[in-house]
Amino acid sequence: MEISFSPERIIETTAPVNTRGSTDRTVRRIAPLEEALAGDLSFLRDGKRIDDLANCSASVLLVPADCPVEPGLNQLFLYCEDPSVALTRLCSVIERDVRPRPEPGIHPSAVIGRGCRVPDSVAVGPHCVIGDRVSLGENTVLEARVCLGPGVVLGDDCRLLPGVVVMDGCRLGDRVTLHPGVVVGADGFGYESGPEGHAKIPQVGGVVVGDDVEIGAGSTVDRARFSDTVIGEGTKIDNLVQIGHNVRVGRHCILCAQVGIAGSTELEDFVVLGGQVGVAGHIRLGRGAQAGAQSGISRNIQAGNTVFGSPALPLLLRQKIFVLQQRLPDLFRRVDKIEADLEKAFENPPRDG
Amino acid sequence: MEISFSPERIIETTAPVNTRGSTDRTVRRIAPLEEALAGDLSFLRDGKRIDDLANCSASVLLVPADCPVEPGLNQLFLYCEDPSVALTRLCSVIERDVRPRPEPGIHPSAVIGRGCRVPDSVAVGPHCVIGDRVSLGENTVLEARVCLGPGVVLGDDCRLLPGVVVMDGCRLGDRVTLHPGVVVGADGFGYESGPEGHAKIPQVGGVVVGDDVEIGAGSTVDRARFSDTVIGEGTKIDNLVQIGHNVRVGRHCILCAQVGIAGSTELEDFVVLGGQVGVAGHIRLGRGAQAGAQSGISRNIQAGNTVFGSPALPLLLRQKIFVLQQRLPDLFRRVDKIEADLEKAFENPPRDG
Amino acid sequence: MEISFSPERIIETTAPVNTRGSTDRTVRRIAPLEEALAGDLSFLRDGKRIDDLANCSASVLLVPADCPVEPGLNQLFLYCEDPSVALTRLCSVIERDVRPRPEPGIHPSAVIGRGCRVPDSVAVGPHCVIGDRVSLGENTVLEARVCLGPGVVLGDDCRLLPGVVVMDGCRLGDRVTLHPGVVVGADGFGYESGPEGHAKIPQVGGVVVGDDVEIGAGSTVDRARFSDTVIGEGTKIDNLVQIGHNVRVGRHCILCAQVGIAGSTELEDFVVLGGQVGVAGHIRLGRGAQAGAQSGISRNIQAGNTVFGSPALPLLLRQKIFVLQQRLPDLFRRVDKIEADLEKAFENPPRDG
Repeated sequence: MEISFSPERIIETTAPVNTRGSTDRTVRRIAPLEEALAGDLSFLRDGKRIDDLANCSASVLLVPADCPVEPGLNQLFLYCEDPSVALTRLCSVIERDVRPRPEPGIHPSAVIGRGCRVPDSVAVGPHCVIGDRVSLGENTVLEARVCLGPGVVLGDDCRLLPGVVVMDGCRLGDRVTLHPGVVVGADGFGYESGPEGHAKIPQVGGVVVGDDVEIGAGSTVDRARFSDTVIGEGTKIDNLVQIGHNVRVGRHCILCAQVGIAGSTELEDFVVLGGQVGVAGHIRLGRGAQAGAQSGISRNIQAGNTVFGSPALPLLLRQKIFVLQQRLPDLFRRVDKIEADLEKAFENPPRDG
Repeated sequence: MEISFSPERIIETTAPVNTRGSTDRTVRRIAPLEEALAGDLSFLRDGKRIDDLANCSASVLLVPADCPVEPGLNQLFLYCEDPSVALTRLCSVIERDVRPRPEPGIHPSAVIGRGCRVPDSVAVGPHCVIGDRVSLGENTVLEARVCLGPGVVLGDDCRLLPGVVVMDGCRLGDRVTLHPGVVVGADGFGYESGPEGHAKIPQVGGVVVGDDVEIGAGSTVDRARFSDTVIGEGTKIDNLVQIGHNVRVGRHCILCAQVGIAGSTELEDFVVLGGQVGVAGHIRLGRGAQAGAQSGISRNIQAGNTVFGSPALPLLLRQKIFVLQQRLPDLFRRVDKIEADLEKAFENPPRDG
Repeated sequence: MEISFSPERIIETTAPVNTRGSTDRTVRRIAPLEEALAGDLSFLRDGKRIDDLANCSASVLLVPADCPVEPGLNQLFLYCEDPSVALTRLCSVIERDVRPRPEPGIHPSAVIGRGCRVPDSVAVGPHCVIGDRVSLGENTVLEARVCLGPGVVLGDDCRLLPGVVVMDGCRLGDRVTLHPGVVVGADGFGYESGPEGHAKIPQVGGVVVGDDVEIGAGSTVDRARFSDTVIGEGTKIDNLVQIGHNVRVGRHCILCAQVGIAGSTELEDFVVLGGQVGVAGHIRLGRGAQAGAQSGISRNIQAGNTVFGSPALPLLLRQKIFVLQQRLPDLFRRVDKIEADLEKAFENPPRDG
C-alpha cells in the first residue's frame, strides 16, 4: 500500500499533545521501527524499545508523550498520549483513501430476483446473484460475485466481500462484514445413522447474525436444524472457522482462526477461543471463558475460567502437567532406583541371612 | 425460517399413533421445548424431559407414544412411535416448501462449453461456467456460480450449491450434494524437494465421488497424482475438511468438520472421524474404526477399534492417561516423599551409627 | 483421466537406459502396481516390492535400472535410473495434453476496470472481475470467476484457478499458482478490545507473494496491518492453510494442509510444518526448522531443530514422553506398591514393637 501524507495532514489526523522537529518528506509508507527509512512513518508503542528509536531514520515518528528522545535532523516527532490509538486513527483515514466505498448502484452483470428491496444507497458489484425477496439495508455494499439466497435480509452498512454466499432465509444485522469466501447458512451436518448408512436430517432453520459482527475469509456458519444458529452482536470471527448448526455464540466473543464449534453448543458473551480450538456439541461456555490455542473442549466451562490443552483442563493445571511431563523420563529413573534400593535393602538381607 | 402449517397438515405429515387435545393455531415455527411459545411446534425426544413438557406452551407437540402427560388448553399432542422420525418427516415437507428445486433451464448468464450433455431436466444457475465435454445427469441442479472443468461427469439428481468448483475430469455419482465453496479436484500437494527448493510433481489423476455423497461448505478434495482419489458411496463430509491426493474413503464414512487426511491413506467403510482429526499419509483405517475429536492418527487402526488423542491411542488407554496426568503433581510429591523417607531411613543411620 | 500413449511415445518421454519385452497395447491409464491391468502403465520405485512386480499385468512398467525381473508376455519393461523421475516426466507431458493452457484472450463476460495492464498473451476466463489499475504479467492465466481488487499486480506466467480472490493492492511474483478458492489480502484479525467490545484496527498493509509460490485450495493469506504480509519465493502451501497478518514466510518453506500461523510470526527459509500445525504470533522459526503434524508452537525454534506435540517440544523428548505416558498406569501401580511396602517395613514394626 503506497500512501501519500504530508506532515501537516498527519499532525491533523493524529492530534499529538506535542510535536518536535520537522521534516520536508511526504510520508509514503508506514513501517515498523526496525525497518523504517526516510519517507516512512513509524511509532514507538511504549518505552521498551527506546534504543531502536534513536537509530530509526523514519521521517515521522509517533512516540509516547513522555518519550525522552529528541528527533534527529529532518525528523518529526509527534508525542501522543497513546501512539497505538493515534496510529489506528491515521490508518482509518488511509483506509478511506485507498479503499473507498464503492459508488452506489447495481452493476449490469448482477442478477437480481423478484420482489427484492434494494435501496438506492446500496452498491451491488459485478456478477452478484440475489435471489427472490431479498432485503438489503441502506448503504450496504455487495462486492463482486456475492450470492444471496431467496429471502435473505441484510441490515444497513453491511459489507460483503467477493465470493461470499449467504443461503436462503438467513438474516444479518447492521454493519456486518463478511470477508471473501464466507458461507453463511449451508446445511448443518445431521444424519440418522444405521447399518445401511446415513439418512439426512433436513436442516430447515436459519442463521441470525447480530450487528457489528465480522467473519473472516473462508469461514462457514451452518444453518440450524430448525430455529436459528445465532452469532451475537459485536462478535469477531477469524478465517476458516466452522460454526455448527444450532450453535449460539454470544455478544463480543473472539474466535481465532480455524476454531471449530460443534452443533448446539452455546457460548455466552465475551468468550475468547484461541486458534484451532475445538468445542464439542451440546455444551456451554460461560461468560468470559477463555481457551488457549488448540484446546479441545468437551465439557462446560464456568464463567471467567481459562482452559488449555486437549482435552482441556484449567490453565494452571495444564501448565503444571506440561512441565512435569518433561520430567517423566527422570521420574521413571527415580522410581527404578527406589525399587532397586528397596530390593537391595529388604530382599537381599533375608535371602542372605 | 417462517413456516405455515395447519394442525391437520401436521397430523397428515407425521402420522401419529394417537392424538389428544386440539389447537386453533397455525404453526409458524419449530422450536426446542424450552423456547417454544404458542404458535410453535415442539417435541419430546424421550421421557427425560417430561417436566419441561408440562411447562411448554407450544401449540403442537410431538411426544413418545407412551408419554403420560396430557395436553393443556389449546394444545395438540401427537403421540408418535419415534418423535424424531416424525419431526424429520415434517422437516422434509417444510424443506420442499421453503427451498423448492429450481426450475429446469439454463440461465442466460451461464457459460457452457462445446460438446456438453445438458439434459432438459437440468437447472443451471446464473454465472455458472461449464467447460467443454461436461456431462450432466438428469435433474441435476447447479446453483449460482458453479464452475465445472472440461470433461467433468455428474450423475442424476446432484445438487451443487453456489460457488462450487469441480476441476477437469472429475466424476460424481448420483444424488451427490456439494455445499457452497467446495473444491473437488485441485492439484494434490506433491513435490520433489532438494536443496534448491521443491519441484512440482504433476497431478494428472482425478477424483471419483460415489452416489449419495454429501460434502460440506469449503471442503477440498484433491485430485490424485495419477489414478483417482475416491470418496465412497454414502459418505458424509462436514465443512472445511481436507482430503489429500490418492486418498480412498470407503462407503458410509462420517468425517466431521476440519478433518484432514493426508495423501494415499485408505479409510474402509463406516469409519467415523471426529472434528479436527488429522490422519497421516499412507496408512489404513479398518472398517468401522472411530477416532475422537482432534485425534492425530499416524498408524493403521484395526477394524472396529476406537482411538483418541494426539498421537492417537486406544480410547480407554487415552482416558486413563488423561486421568493420571491430572494426578502427576501428586505423584511427583509422593516420589519426593518416598526418596526423603528412604534417605532418612537408610543413609542417616549408617552415618550416625 | 483417460490418456492415450503409444509404447514408442512413452519410451521417447521417459528415456530409459534399457528396455526389454514389447507390447501392442496403447497405454490408457497409470495405476499403482497392485491395481494395474493390461493397458495400464505402472512403476516400481525401488527393490522392495519385486514380488508384486512379477504378478503385475500392466502393459508398460517403469523399473529401476538394476531390476532383476524380466517382462512377461506382451509386457514392456523400461529400466530407468530413477523410475520416479521418469514417471514425473511422463506426467508432465500428460498434463500438457489433458490440461492445455487456455488460449489467450479476454472472455466477453469478464469485467475489467480502468487503467489496467492486460498483455495480449494473458487469458482471462468467464466471469472474472478485475478492478482498476491492475497489472497482469505476460502469459498469466485467470481461469473462471477470478476476482482481483484495484491495484493488484501479478507477474508473468501466473495461474489463478476458479474462484480465487486477490484483494486490492496485493502483489504476486512470476509463476505463482493459486488454487480454487484461495483468498489473498483479506483483512488481518486485529481489534482493540475493551469492556464494551472490540474496535477494529484498520488493516491497510498488503500481501507480497514471491516467485514460484503455490497456494492450495481454500487457503487464506491476510493483508498486513501496515507494511506487508510476505510469502517467500518457492514456498509451497497446501489446502485450507491460514496465514495471519504481518506474517513473513521465508523461501522454499512447506506448509501442509490446515496449518495456521498467527500474526507477525516469521518463518525463515526451508521451514517445514506438518498438517494442522498451529504457530503462535510474534515468534520466529529458524531456517530449516520442522514441526510434526498437529504441533502447537508457541516459542521460537532454533534453525534446524525439529519439534512435535502440543505444546511443541523437541521431537525426541516428545517421543519419549509419548512412550512413558503409556506406562503411567503401571508407574502409579509401582509407586502404590512402594508406599505399601514402606508402610509395612517402617510403620508396622514400631507399632508392633
